[in-house]
Amino acid sequence: MSVTVVGSIAFDAVKTPFGQRDRMLGGAATHFALAASFFDQVHVVGPVGDDFGDHDLAVLATRGTNVDDVERVAGGRTFFWRGEYGWDLNSRETLDTQLNVFADFEPKLSPASLESDVLFLANTQPALQRDVREHCAGARFVALDSMNLWIETARDDLLEVIPCVDCLVLNDAELRQLTQKPNLVSAAREVLEWGPSVVVAKQGEYGAALVTAESFFALPAYPLETVVDPTGAGDTFAGGLVGYVARHLDRAFDDDVLRQAMAYGTALASFNVEEFGTERVARLTADEVHDRVAHLEITRFERATVELVG
Amino acid sequence: MSVTVVGSIAFDAVKTPFGQRDRMLGGAATHFALAASFFDQVHVVGPVGDDFGDHDLAVLATRGTNVDDVERVAGGRTFFWRGEYGWDLNSRETLDTQLNVFADFEPKLSPASLESDVLFLANTQPALQRDVREHCAGARFVALDSMNLWIETARDDLLEVIPCVDCLVLNDAELRQLTQKPNLVSAAREVLEWGPSVVVAKQGEYGAALVTAESFFALPAYPLETVVDPTGAGDTFAGGLVGYVARHLDRAFDDDVLRQAMAYGTALASFNVEEFGTERVARLTADEVHDRVAHLEITRFERATVELVG
Repeated sequence: MSVTVVGSIAFDAVKTPFGQRDRMLGGAATHFALAASFFDQVHVVGPVGDDFGDHDLAVLATRGTNVDDVERVAGGRTFFWRGEYGWDLNSRETLDTQLNVFADFEPKLSPASLESDVLFLANTQPALQRDVREHCAGARFVALDSMNLWIETARDDLLEVIPCVDCLVLNDAELRQLTQKPNLVSAAREVLEWGPSVVVAKQGEYGAALVTAESFFALPAYPLETVVDPTGAGDTFAGGLVGYVARHLDRAFDDDVLRQAMAYGTALASFNVEEFGTERVARLTADEVHDRVAHLEITRFERATVELVG
Repeated sequence: MSVTVVGSIAFDAVKTPFGQRDRMLGGAATHFALAASFFDQVHVVGPVGDDFGDHDLAVLATRGTNVDDVERVAGGRTFFWRGEYGWDLNSRETLDTQLNVFADFEPKLSPASLESDVLFLANTQPALQRDVREHCAGARFVALDSMNLWIETARDDLLEVIPCVDCLVLNDAELRQLTQKPNLVSAAREVLEWGPSVVVAKQGEYGAALVTAESFFALPAYPLETVVDPTGAGDTFAGGLVGYVARHLDRAFDDDVLRQAMAYGTALASFNVEEFGTERVARLTADEVHDRVAHLEITRFERATVELVG
């Protein structure tokens, strides 16, 4: 079994109230791979420029991730994003986006990447996601992320690719925007009618919710006293979620498996935000992940009988 | 045992994307009492005007709530609030606030109200809350709600009353504003240092979190496909929470009890938002409450062992 992720590999410049980095490894595919690599062999497909160093590639290859399909574009520069977060980290402003080699990205998947059982279409143009989806015809679990930009500028393309995937992962506000339904549950049910079996709404510091035809599940974010940099949290979450599913592919759509996958995604995302960029997850250990999942007791309460009036 | 609530009784005019009411019974004390009355004898202390009818009083007295301390101010009019909610119900605009008899409210507690073991100081001026707190010297569990207005205009008074209560219940944004700490966990820990043993952060559609010195607990809101009117959800939640604690007063600070109290608060708040104002909770039955608490399985997942890489 293996997991292929297609998406951005980037350098990020990030300023938060707790510090800043002028240039750190980032990108959706990077954060996803660093999390999913705990569970399965990951293949990363994405472009980088001449400025992408051996050390960056080594981080991407953490826990055995295959980087053969990281395409080095001669004469090009790696996707660059600069952003700044507000006081409570709930708002961020994009100060600069240089697509660079990502602007003309045409994914070239090696046979190994094409043959993965699990595919994550990280946030890119929906037409490109659809193209990759069609090439990976044998994938048994395909998840897709998107963003407000594509909902606004490529809505038709997005509505064409969503029916071709098993799981849609979106921020909750984007899920509302996409479906034009103000309520999370009804928005998710709308997407389920389009084809996917699973809808996951990312809710930032509040956690995430999972909706299937039979079930609703929600998990608050792991409580942290120190959050340093939220960049990449959503993709790290997706990496934990999809990675866990990949390891249980014969039961990928079982409610138990999906709920456990949410727990691993939640745990991994919580590590991601404790330091800048990939710093924390790159050196994370399996024991630390297990420990944090075990501490997701934050939602556990015992049933008790109380006699009520009325 | 009994629970005394001191706060506003109001008429609300509310417009949401799903309809409107020009004048419906509302107010913090009202919503709190309708929920807490499932658990214990409630005494409501608050002022109304000549415009407050017998039917309104009958609703307030649902499930045996004692309304002897509802003060009818001759020649006065009841507190009136008019507001409108946005598309996704996450934003609301106050269009009109007429304090009326609430402007000069000086709580007069009968012996029965004074002798309650449990006291809820609903959102009013902090100096008034402190005064009531001092008069109810024997109360064994006292919870307090407040709002951004008082944090901005009566901060010193608020910082004087908070150390005198056991439980602070606030919206999460207000908790950050109060403590000037951007992180929920550290903000709650700051409040714990001021005196309260329990801090509850209301997170609107995302649910609520509970923080004590030893424990963190969070519960997502009950998933609803139809939310009609969020007005009063926070006070209904507080009524369920504090009512449950009142019924288990000998173990009021036990983690188990507090977590179960959060579940009942969550269930009750979810009913409140299904219809306008008090409409749903006024006719709610004990069985319906139990059923919904039983369905708070939305956060339950089984532990599973998975061998991780790394």
